[in-house]
Amino acid sequence: MAGSTYGNIFKITTWGESHGKALGVVIDGCPAGLSLSEEDIQEYLDRRKPGKSKISTPRKEDDACEILSGVFEGKTTGTPISIMVPNTSQRSGDYSEIASYYRPGHADYTFDQKYGFRDYRGGGRSSGRETIGRVAAGAIACKLLKEMGITVMAYTKSIGPVETDPAKFDRDAILSTPTAMPDTEASARAEEYLAEKMMEKDSVGGTMECIVEGMPIGIGDPVFEKLDANLSKAIMSIGAVKAVEIGDGTAVSKTVGSKNNDAFCMEDGKVSKKTNHAGGILGGMSDGSPILIRAHVKPTPSIFRTQETVNRNGEEIEIAIKGRHDPIIVPRAVVVMESMVAITLLDALMVNMSARMDSLIEFYR
Amino acid sequence: MAGSTYGNIFKITTWGESHGKALGVVIDGCPAGLSLSEEDIQEYLDRRKPGKSKISTPRKEDDACEILSGVFEGKTTGTPISIMVPNTSQRSGDYSEIASYYRPGHADYTFDQKYGFRDYRGGGRSSGRETIGRVAAGAIACKLLKEMGITVMAYTKSIGPVETDPAKFDRDAILSTPTAMPDTEASARAEEYLAEKMMEKDSVGGTMECIVEGMPIGIGDPVFEKLDANLSKAIMSIGAVKAVEIGDGTAVSKTVGSKNNDAFCMEDGKVSKKTNHAGGILGGMSDGSPILIRAHVKPTPSIFRTQETVNRNGEEIEIAIKGRHDPIIVPRAVVVMESMVAITLLDALMVNMSARMDSLIEFYR
Amino acid sequence: MAGSTYGNIFKITTWGESHGKALGVVIDGCPAGLSLSEEDIQEYLDRRKPGKSKISTPRKEDDACEILSGVFEGKTTGTPISIMVPNTSQRSGDYSEIASYYRPGHADYTFDQKYGFRDYRGGGRSSGRETIGRVAAGAIACKLLKEMGITVMAYTKSIGPVETDPAKFDRDAILSTPTAMPDTEASARAEEYLAEKMMEKDSVGGTMECIVEGMPIGIGDPVFEKLDANLSKAIMSIGAVKAVEIGDGTAVSKTVGSKNNDAFCMEDGKVSKKTNHAGGILGGMSDGSPILIRAHVKPTPSIFRTQETVNRNGEEIEIAIKGRHDPIIVPRAVVVMESMVAITLLDALMVNMSARMDSLIEFYR
Amino acid sequence: MAGSTYGNIFKITTWGESHGKALGVVIDGCPAGLSLSEEDIQEYLDRRKPGKSKISTPRKEDDACEILSGVFEGKTTGTPISIMVPNTSQRSGDYSEIASYYRPGHADYTFDQKYGFRDYRGGGRSSGRETIGRVAAGAIACKLLKEMGITVMAYTKSIGPVETDPAKFDRDAILSTPTAMPDTEASARAEEYLAEKMMEKDSVGGTMECIVEGMPIGIGDPVFEKLDANLSKAIMSIGAVKAVEIGDGTAVSKTVGSKNNDAFCMEDGKVSKKTNHAGGILGGMSDGSPILIRAHVKPTPSIFRTQETVNRNGEEIEIAIKGRHDPIIVPRAVVVMESMVAITLLDALMVNMSARMDSLIEFYR
Repeated sequence: MAGSTYGNIFKITTWGESHGKALGVVIDGCPAGLSLSEEDIQEYLDRRKPGKSKISTPRKEDDACEILSGVFEGKTTGTPISIMVPNTSQRSGDYSEIASYYRPGHADYTFDQKYGFRDYRGGGRSSGRETIGRVAAGAIACKLLKEMGITVMAYTKSIGPVETDPAKFDRDAILSTPTAMPDTEASARAEEYLAEKMMEKDSVGGTMECIVEGMPIGIGDPVFEKLDANLSKAIMSIGAVKAVEIGDGTAVSKTVGSKNNDAFCMEDGKVSKKTNHAGGILGGMSDGSPILIRAHVKPTPSIFRTQETVNRNGEEIEIAIKGRHDPIIVPRAVVVMESMVAITLLDALMVNMSARMDSLIEFYR
Repeated sequence: MAGSTYGNIFKITTWGESHGKALGVVIDGCPAGLSLSEEDIQEYLDRRKPGKSKISTPRKEDDACEILSGVFEGKTTGTPISIMVPNTSQRSGDYSEIASYYRPGHADYTFDQKYGFRDYRGGGRSSGRETIGRVAAGAIACKLLKEMGITVMAYTKSIGPVETDPAKFDRDAILSTPTAMPDTEASARAEEYLAEKMMEKDSVGGTMECIVEGMPIGIGDPVFEKLDANLSKAIMSIGAVKAVEIGDGTAVSKTVGSKNNDAFCMEDGKVSKKTNHAGGILGGMSDGSPILIRAHVKPTPSIFRTQETVNRNGEEIEIAIKGRHDPIIVPRAVVVMESMVAITLLDALMVNMSARMDSLIEFYR
Repeated sequence: MAGSTYGNIFKITTWGESHGKALGVVIDGCPAGLSLSEEDIQEYLDRRKPGKSKISTPRKEDDACEILSGVFEGKTTGTPISIMVPNTSQRSGDYSEIASYYRPGHADYTFDQKYGFRDYRGGGRSSGRETIGRVAAGAIACKLLKEMGITVMAYTKSIGPVETDPAKFDRDAILSTPTAMPDTEASARAEEYLAEKMMEKDSVGGTMECIVEGMPIGIGDPVFEKLDANLSKAIMSIGAVKAVEIGDGTAVSKTVGSKNNDAFCMEDGKVSKKTNHAGGILGGMSDGSPILIRAHVKPTPSIFRTQETVNRNGEEIEIAIKGRHDPIIVPRAVVVMESMVAITLLDALMVNMSARMDSLIEFYR
Repeated sequence: MAGSTYGNIFKITTWGESHGKALGVVIDGCPAGLSLSEEDIQEYLDRRKPGKSKISTPRKEDDACEILSGVFEGKTTGTPISIMVPNTSQRSGDYSEIASYYRPGHADYTFDQKYGFRDYRGGGRSSGRETIGRVAAGAIACKLLKEMGITVMAYTKSIGPVETDPAKFDRDAILSTPTAMPDTEASARAEEYLAEKMMEKDSVGGTMECIVEGMPIGIGDPVFEKLDANLSKAIMSIGAVKAVEIGDGTAVSKTVGSKNNDAFCMEDGKVSKKTNHAGGILGGMSDGSPILIRAHVKPTPSIFRTQETVNRNGEEIEIAIKGRHDPIIVPRAVVVMESMVAITLLDALMVNMSARMDSLIEFYR
């Protein structure tokens, strides 16, 4: 319902279509007193910007953001922060043809069925450009979490058959490789694989992973607002994600309790866990170990090969999609995952503050 | 926040702990005019009731429900339906020991950290008994969906290494096998495997799947209230679920666009899809094909083997859990999955009614 | 939507009809660690209990509450608190006649139009008995607010033409007079007036007022979640309330700015206000002065005089309502007002905790 | 919480400060298919625009709106509609002085206490300019309601002692008089009264009223989402409103049941009421009679007389406010009231669609 708003206290509302005048987000409930500039946000937007490499759509978009409200003398005021990104690379002509038919793997048909018609230009609201608002809000959430000692880091884990090697994990590589892989060698192999598939006019799937460190313990609310439940929703709401895993994820269904249970132990005088199969969440609440989330992303549905489909008149036709499209979604979606995780965690932290009577009384003393 | 309420218009609020006086649910927003009796609900509760077979805990619980409000002369009135299930098999003594330490794989530690203390009897609110309220509400949602021509069916897909064979799918077997598998042969093998693991004082993981047929097209709200996003949250909020897949799920990350895209076609004069890799959801909205969801469930964390852990004084200790526990969670969780899916779909259908101006005007004419 | 749930973090869900098996409430999001017993709640329920005096309905109802969950070893656990009050004085026979027609001033007609039919026994869900759940939850909110140094006190301000005299304000009288007036002399005059109107088979309107002291400053969220906006909703949601005033209320429309503005001043080293026309709320946030709210309550619609109305067949008829009815609503509604105010304030306090970044960081350090 | 979002299905999020770059609103959940242009919205914005007469602030602001998303080929698409109004008349210099002290009757002090500091320019977020977003959204809600045969009309009822005469009610006068009074004679007298008070460097309170005709029956959700409860919140959330009345409002507390009850009768074969003391709402649901709401608005707190207050250093000082201020708030707030009522009603209508099972089934057949 009114599906463009997300979050309870830290609440974001995104708006905008692929080929409208602009896209943006309103962030409401951001605590007052955070230093914030357009540069802080631009840094994150640039990570999802197209046109940066040959494995990305050749569309050039500036995606330059403007803060319209909620910041005064360089600090957030507690009032809603409105951020806008004008659309500058609108070639609506590219898309006029797709008005008449339904692209396989896209939301054309379901949008038409729901609303009776659709803004067909570049996918309209179902375009990946919709995530601009999420990332702008995510930049703010990440900055605030960092002030609290919490880091959120997402990266590409695999592209098609090419997996990153945990032994070669290099954090800096996430921002420097065109694949957003934390492993430069795997990234090179993935680029080759992508080049090959582009030649075949095809596209490729992949996985992305997110690690959260420094999360306080006990965050998340049983039974429906569990932290893993909300993270799953957050990640699954990103277009093209078809599976979400927490910790060992799908592997838990093939294992036994004696192996899957993480033994508690003491470490530096604190309760810790010897292993982390649980991925940092027990009973829907953070347990102090790193939080681990993985998402499986389908191949870009826009491919240049001939495909079968139907048009709005109910005729079966063949189509070949034109335009500018990424051969893989993951590398640019990584920062979207990071954003959605950060927004979800920050909101959960804010909601959790009144869980205990003594803290509530102490707070208002 | 206040995590025991779920849904927007069809809104449920569950309450109760494993060893309290009773457990229950309040269902608000149920449409008026549905025939409803305690039998309708009991049928679903019986599917999750323990003590039915040797692969289930020997605890005997009646789990008999009582409707306290919201039904008049056999029909729902539109006002909140309160359903209560008294706890009758409370042996709190069994659990007194676990008050002092943190069971691996359980929520003991996180509950303590969040709230400062916990109702340690049988897991308290984190017990699987919490799902009684979900299932009672699910029975109502399922009944209403059936009236609309929509069927929701969940079953056990695999137990440890034992997979059901789609070629031997037998719907009746779901209710007749102790494993809730739709394949009696696989079920027999799974029972053997479970018996073996029980001998080893261990527990087993598994997968469950849910298929929805008859769903209208266009249900789900871009961009944050996508149907798959909400289904993921719903399923991941069930204790012990660690991964959720829609359609082809994790497999999409290893495939290519030309294989993953489902071609649209015409069938009996209607738009249809030649394949259903998407699992019935495109762009976050139902597309008319069956909806397919899969969940991976970890092994029961309560095992009888000796385990390492820490106690509330911060001492490392060894424990051996006693009591009555299922060696696998899945068979009794299947009806919980069915319930959560049904509640989520019904709510999405209700929310969707005002998506188009012409329908809205027509409705109030 | 699903209108039986109220609040964001401190969230209550009430259920039950006048003549069902029971009524109750689920309180979710109550902080852990509050001492709570059935006596704490019963004290508030007894204030709204009927049959206590001759100006109250002669129906005798125990309204004895039972806590079913959420409390362990005498303290709230942070999990949902379910409270039930069985109905013991159900004489459904009294009401069978009203099934066929619409009582003036009641919700019979609107319920029928909305839902197609209704539980006509004693008003069903629109009965004043619905407020039992509110008062049970209010008892908890009041107890928690008291621990924070915040007191909420409601009382009857006027009954028909009889006004309480502020100069004779006696707090103890609120609980000892049958009118809930804080002025024993006015109360005696009001009783006479009520006796007179009961002789005339008529009923009477009145006003109630609520004063909150000790509220921290800055609580309430611009622009739609203003404290006065939420208090107005809370009070107006009580059946029979037709007007709500904050501070000087309706009088502000006849005054001038130079008289209505409250001058700020210093008092004991703190910012204070010389007057309190604003009623303790400025810009939708508490300003440190006592919060003042007033409600105007219509006369009991159930009167014994002959009245004109229509029946379900669309025939104009004359009716004379029988049964047991209060001649005035206010004295028993006072504790409902107190409850709704307390619930609203507590929720606003919980929501406010993350308004500033420095407090948020400090909280999780 | 995150107080800038309002509504459930028809959901609006406003943003912007008095002296920021722009103000605006995102409307999410607007049904697809409504014809919508910037002219539709501008017409409503012009009604609240300042500088139109001598009883309005001499500030000249264009308040020209731009639709940035959610409309395609002249029709709403069902996706979020983002509307922006740039600020063009920002003279921040006017306000620099008020950074240091707290203006009586304003939110300066409470904002500072809540957030630690504030955007002091022109009141920042607590400025009346905040209502621009509400009015833009209200224009859309009103247009949609009109398509459904529902009209919402607000006007000035009184200014200080000057009351409009119902016998001289002239609908056209609402838009043509500078007071927004539906009575040209009363309006002329009110203008004289205002001129007098402006000479005295003072400001004036007043009342506004809203009438809704054509509302379907049964809209509003017992018990907390009653239509009158939500309307009260909506109206009380408008700055400077201190009391809200439904129907006879405050008068009900002085009357008796036999006079206050509205007798049902038959009229043209339909159920109707002989009187409308209830103001069109019974049991929290619309009853088919016109809905009547009244609001009491305090005098503009910004007056040019010398006033006592304190500054941020805790010193008592005298101030004389400068700048450009309306001597009365009501005439420009009338369209804000109309907007908030329309938004609230439309949302309630959308939420109500699934109240009955038979309608739900019929809808999806």
